[in-house]
This record gives sequence, C-alpha cells and structure tokens, in this order.
Amino acid sequence: MEVTANRKILKYDGTSLNKQEDEIVSEYPLTIVVNGEEFATLVCTPTDLEDMAIGFLAAEGVLRLPDEIKSVTIDEKRGFAYVELKNQQPVGKEFYSKRFIGSCCGKSRQSFYFYNDVTTAKTVVSKTHISVEQCFHLMRLLQQSSSYFQATGGVHNAALCDKNSILISRTDIGRHNTLDKIYGHWMRNRIPLHDKLIVFSGRISSEVLLKTAKIGVGIILSKSAPTDLALKMADELGITVVGFIRGNTCNVYTHPERITEPFA
Amino acid sequence: MEVTANRKILKYDGTSLNKQEDEIVSEYPLTIVVNGEEFATLVCTPTDLEDMAIGFLAAEGVLRLPDEIKSVTIDEKRGFAYVELKNQQPVGKEFYSKRFIGSCCGKSRQSFYFYNDVTTAKTVVSKTHISVEQCFHLMRLLQQSSSYFQATGGVHNAALCDKNSILISRTDIGRHNTLDKIYGHWMRNRIPLHDKLIVFSGRISSEVLLKTAKIGVGIILSKSAPTDLALKMADELGITVVGFIRGNTCNVYTHPERITEPFA
Repeated sequence: MEVTANRKILKYDGTSLNKQEDEIVSEYPLTIVVNGEEFATLVCTPTDLEDMAIGFLAAEGVLRLPDEIKSVTIDEKRGFAYVELKNQQPVGKEFYSKRFIGSCCGKSRQSFYFYNDVTTAKTVVSKTHISVEQCFHLMRLLQQSSSYFQATGGVHNAALCDKNSILISRTDIGRHNTLDKIYGHWMRNRIPLHDKLIVFSGRISSEVLLKTAKIGVGIILSKSAPTDLALKMADELGITVVGFIRGNTCNVYTHPERITEPFA
Repeated sequence: MEVTANRKILKYDGTSLNKQEDEIVSEYPLTIVVNGEEFATLVCTPTDLEDMAIGFLAAEGVLRLPDEIKSVTIDEKRGFAYVELKNQQPVGKEFYSKRFIGSCCGKSRQSFYFYNDVTTAKTVVSKTHISVEQCFHLMRLLQQSSSYFQATGGVHNAALCDKNSILISRTDIGRHNTLDKIYGHWMRNRIPLHDKLIVFSGRISSEVLLKTAKIGVGIILSKSAPTDLALKMADELGITVVGFIRGNTCNVYTHPERITEPFA
C-alpha cells in the first residue's frame, strides 16, 4: 500500500499563492479482530500491518507469548486484521483499560494507571551498557533511515538496535505504533533482546516507556523530552532513559549505570 | 497542580556528564466517570481538568449540548473527574469506538472510521475568511503564548482565535487534549463560533480534523503537516486546512475560498 499520496495544494511562497503538487502522508484505519471479536480500531501508516496488529495486542496484554499466535490475516482493502489466537477465551476488552488504583501500603507500581500494565510490564535487569558517543551515533542512524519523514514531515521513527547498528526500524504517523510494530516483529521473529536498545524520535511518555518495558529492553534513547510519569516508571522498571540527544549533547534521566562517558 | 516537576539529571555537555536540576513536564492520568460509570482513563497535562473531562465526552459524542451537563467534580488527588449528565441512560461505551463500514452506494463519509463520528461531525458552513498574513500573525501569537513548551520541550498548544487575536489557548502533552480542553471550555461558556478558527501546533491527523468539525469552526491553521485522511475529511466537512505555517510561507490544502492573499 502507498504510504504517501500526491495532492494538489496552494503554496504561499512569501509573495503569492501558487498551485503545486505535494506529497501527503497516508493515515489508514485498521480494525483488529481477535478470534472473531472486534477488539479495537487504530489509525496507522499502512506498512508492516501484521506486526502492527500483533504488537498492538501484545502491548495491550492480550497476547503474552509468540506461541499463542495461530494466524494473522490482513484485509488491506477494507482495513481489517484478523488474528486467531490458540486461547479461545473471550478477550474481555474492558479489562485492558481499567483504572488501577494503587493500594495505600506504598509498595510498588504506584505510578501505574492501568491494571493491565501492572501485570505485564516487566522490570528490566539487562546489564548492557553504552557510551554517550554510541548514543549520538545511533540517533544519527535513525534520522538517516527516515525517508518518509524527509518527504512529508509527519511521521515518527523507532528502531531496535544493538550498540553499533540498527536491526529493524519502523515508521508511523503514530508514535506508539512505531513501537508496536517493533514489538510485533519481535513476537513473530523472536530476536534475542538482552543486549538491545530502542532509539526513538518522539517524546517519551508513560505509554512509550511502558511499551519499552513490555518489549523488554533496558535502554531507550530519544531526541525529545520525557515526562515525569515516564521517568517514575523508568526508575521503578529499571530502564535507562536518555533524552534530548541533539548534536553531541544529551540528558541521562534514569539508571545512568548503563551509560559510560567516552574514554571512561 | 504543578504542570512541571524538578528532577536531578545527568547532562552531557559535549565533554562530560554533570549533575544538573532539570524541569520535566508532568503527565497526569485522569479517569472520567459518567453518571457513576467509569468511561475512560486518559493522560493529560493537569490544567483545566473540568474542560478536559467535558471536552473529551463531547468529542466522544457522549455529550451533545451544554444543557445536558448537571455537574462536574474533580478529585485532583486521585485523578478522577465525576461528570453527572441529565440524561441518565447508560453510556454504552462500546458504541463510541465501533468501526464504521461505509456502504457501497458511494454517497458520503466514506473516509470515516467510527460510527460516532459519522453522526456527530458537523459539516461547517462558515463564510469567514482570513488573509495569509493573518495566518502568520496568529501562528506567531500561539508560539509566543507557550511558556511551558519553552521550559520543557514536550507539549502541544491549541488556541481558539478570531482573525486578529487569541481568545483562549490550551496546553497539553497530548495533541488531542489541547482541542478537547477548548471544546470543553466552549461547552461550559458557549462562545459564538461562526467567525472563529483554531490555531494548532501539531500534525493535523484525522482525529484532529474531526475534533475541529465537532467544535464547529471552519478554519484550522498548523505549523505541521496534515495526513491524507484528514484532508479527505476536510474536503467533505467544509473545513479549510492551512499547514506548514513557517515564517512567511504556508500550504493551503483544502477549501481555499476562505483564504485571501495580502492586498487581494
């Protein structure tokens, strides 16, 4: 499917309005049906739709392990993903967005707001470390890999990397979708994750942080800012957050034990 | 409530990692309870929470008219908004995210994907027009009004404007929330809308376009790009989309009859 569309627009160049052909990023509604039951409709960039559907279900906690997937069938024309899971129990949609109210005993996961996340976000124990120079290098690679962004100015990128190179990268108009597509790819291909990290173009919100934890990597790098709630969760889940990676400067927000200075 | 939090971070300045105090944007989970029933949990910047709750319900189609609101009570500490509506019917949450499959007779609203939007998004008939110079002026005003953004680098802004000035502006970490807060303010204060427009910092996705239509204004200005689906909806709903407003250039994507050139 096409990820951009051409369209006639009027461009004002500082002097007058002139007709011009422009390239516009596509937005595609995808409805995910699980074992015959409509689960959710999301909008995404129409690439990697199997990964999108599987990753979304994994992030929502409907799917825990690759073995549970029986089949994924995409109806591109109508915008449907039919996922068959081995577990035939009803999906129980209500559960996945139910507010979690932390108990008063002050133990853990007080910053979580959905029950589902409390049970599915894993604490990351990876001992992988990376230098700040490698952070800058990986962010440059992410930016170079993004051709749609340069054409249309409207998408986000995420990549699963090792310390030196990008293994897979995914583009989407939705920040969260980029991570779901990576999660789906992992679910369907089972790449070992203990020494991997995520490089991301967008803000690190609590939802982005939770997806990182669910995927199970210990380091997330971004050129943008994190939120306070994302950092509380990162403290708790053992994830290293490096943000504002721009040129040769960056901020290390949480778990700095995984970040080394150059020549340290 | 605080919209930012201070936090100790490690800043890499190009030479070494140094401890520093940093200001981080807050992210706040808000659960909306309608007539005693939990409807949804969203995350937002903790400002204008009454507007946030009412605007969200209006955008979801639960609430159509200001008269239907009986009361709004915010429990800031626990993150709950209790909304009492005069209509005591159950909210029927399922309906609001049900996939809409357009009929084959090719009439209208083929680009819509939720039933709710088909019934609630109004076609805008406003005859207001604006010059490109006024577009540039309003975008500059929006950017000047955003103090949180300059401090923390992580938020979006939307403003309800007339041709020359900002009437209300709202800030949030969520693009959609900025518009919901404006919708809620309108619902609670009933500002006449026929000559108003929206100025927005983020990408114009289908969801942003639909919110603009539901609020009922005919022009949306953005410094970012639109998506193809948003433009199809704008064609159909009679909304003028002007994007990529940067310096003294911009793109007019739809319904250019409302845009005049300078000295035209």
